[in-house]
Amino acid sequence: MKFIRFKHKNEPTIIQGIITDIGIKPIEGDMYADWKIAGELYNPEEIEILEPLTPRHVIGIGANYVGKWEDLPTDVPELPVFFYKPVSSVIGSGTSIVIPQGIDEVKFESELAAVIGKTASQITEIEAADYIFGYTVANDVTAPQFFHEDGHWMIGKSFDTFTPLGPCIETEIDPDSIRVEAYLNGDKKQESPTTHMIVPMRKMIAYLSSVMTLEPGDVILTGSPLGAEMMRAGDEIVCQIDGIGELPNPVEQKANVRLR
Amino acid sequence: MKFIRFKHKNEPTIIQGIITDIGIKPIEGDMYADWKIAGELYNPEEIEILEPLTPRHVIGIGANYVGKWEDLPTDVPELPVFFYKPVSSVIGSGTSIVIPQGIDEVKFESELAAVIGKTASQITEIEAADYIFGYTVANDVTAPQFFHEDGHWMIGKSFDTFTPLGPCIETEIDPDSIRVEAYLNGDKKQESPTTHMIVPMRKMIAYLSSVMTLEPGDVILTGSPLGAEMMRAGDEIVCQIDGIGELPNPVEQKANVRLR
Repeated sequence: MKFIRFKHKNEPTIIQGIITDIGIKPIEGDMYADWKIAGELYNPEEIEILEPLTPRHVIGIGANYVGKWEDLPTDVPELPVFFYKPVSSVIGSGTSIVIPQGIDEVKFESELAAVIGKTASQITEIEAADYIFGYTVANDVTAPQFFHEDGHWMIGKSFDTFTPLGPCIETEIDPDSIRVEAYLNGDKKQESPTTHMIVPMRKMIAYLSSVMTLEPGDVILTGSPLGAEMMRAGDEIVCQIDGIGELPNPVEQKANVRLR
Repeated sequence: MKFIRFKHKNEPTIIQGIITDIGIKPIEGDMYADWKIAGELYNPEEIEILEPLTPRHVIGIGANYVGKWEDLPTDVPELPVFFYKPVSSVIGSGTSIVIPQGIDEVKFESELAAVIGKTASQITEIEAADYIFGYTVANDVTAPQFFHEDGHWMIGKSFDTFTPLGPCIETEIDPDSIRVEAYLNGDKKQESPTTHMIVPMRKMIAYLSSVMTLEPGDVILTGSPLGAEMMRAGDEIVCQIDGIGELPNPVEQKANVRLR
């Protein structure tokens, strides 16, 4: 099932729906637990797609891919580099990524994102699959110019528009048999199977659940393959995972400088 | 005005209210915008107090106090060390802080916390006061044993129960004329005027608003005075700001080890 959120034509209401062969069916209720079809079909050409959820937390992991399978380490790091992105940074497919004032390029990072669907505390790697509701594509946009020299990434990960998510949440895909891709102005820059993750996704989720109670709506970004590059105003970045969809976002420069 | 959240006796409903001289008055509506008294007085002795809000984001700042006024730097850092704490770590007054498995002590850090009340983007330091709804006391509990050697604090700041907030949100206090205190088993360990902050609170908020759009429910922890120490199972920590109140939390050790 592919869950999306959208607006119809110019109406302000945010509608939740599922993608079907014959059009978009609106739903009501709790996507994670108990929902039903509620209303008439929408024409996909008459909707504006939004981010498929408003996350509760967005959690990322640093440098989590090797270039080829043989480079995978025997042991995963005891303490992986995790970080948060704020929910204020989330945008949907098609919305512009805005380069902050003072810099003229930011990095794209195409990633598989897992959406937690059930309360998860102290779960094992094997159990983790049962707690994942579905998957979406994420672009972990980053301004390394704002990384603190002592290693804190917070500001460089936090600007508005820095976390495109979408186009949908796919609940029926095998996360071990998909490829994470990115196209900058049409040129392929990233392409990797998810099996090249250093800390596998379910191990990440098990580890996180030993620290914090995960809840429905928590989104875990699983790291970006080699090949991430900088992008500038006028570029278009498309992050993509076949089976989930394409996440295109144009890039623009923040214009309205305000002197302090 | 002092806003709180609580449960009455053993009932599960979470009630929002204000503290008055004659008891707790329940309110309904949006605390930040439009609310009214709704119901009969509650006896303070019959309620269980909860954290005064469920934050949207919890944002902290590293090492933000000097010991004495003369030590304040002439210039504030261009890029302060900010970090996030997850909303899953928030607990209320009286709830136990739980030391994670594998370690036997964690650090307390008593702090003034500002609660954002209006959407804030690109605001100035002078404007910042208009965007603050009120203030609460925070304990930025930290397990430095889980800081990554490359400088990432995420895990060390993220365990469940690591962000006590409370007892109330006070909307009518002057944040520049209060003192942040902490008492470990009754012994005073921290006491500092808020004027000893290296990055003043309003400057922090202005800076953050240049990066990310702040919204009602975002909570900004403003750093902890010198004197923070480790605490162990059996200890009681009380963070305190006169005019807001006391935030007592017992400390216990996580017991149920689960082998993986």
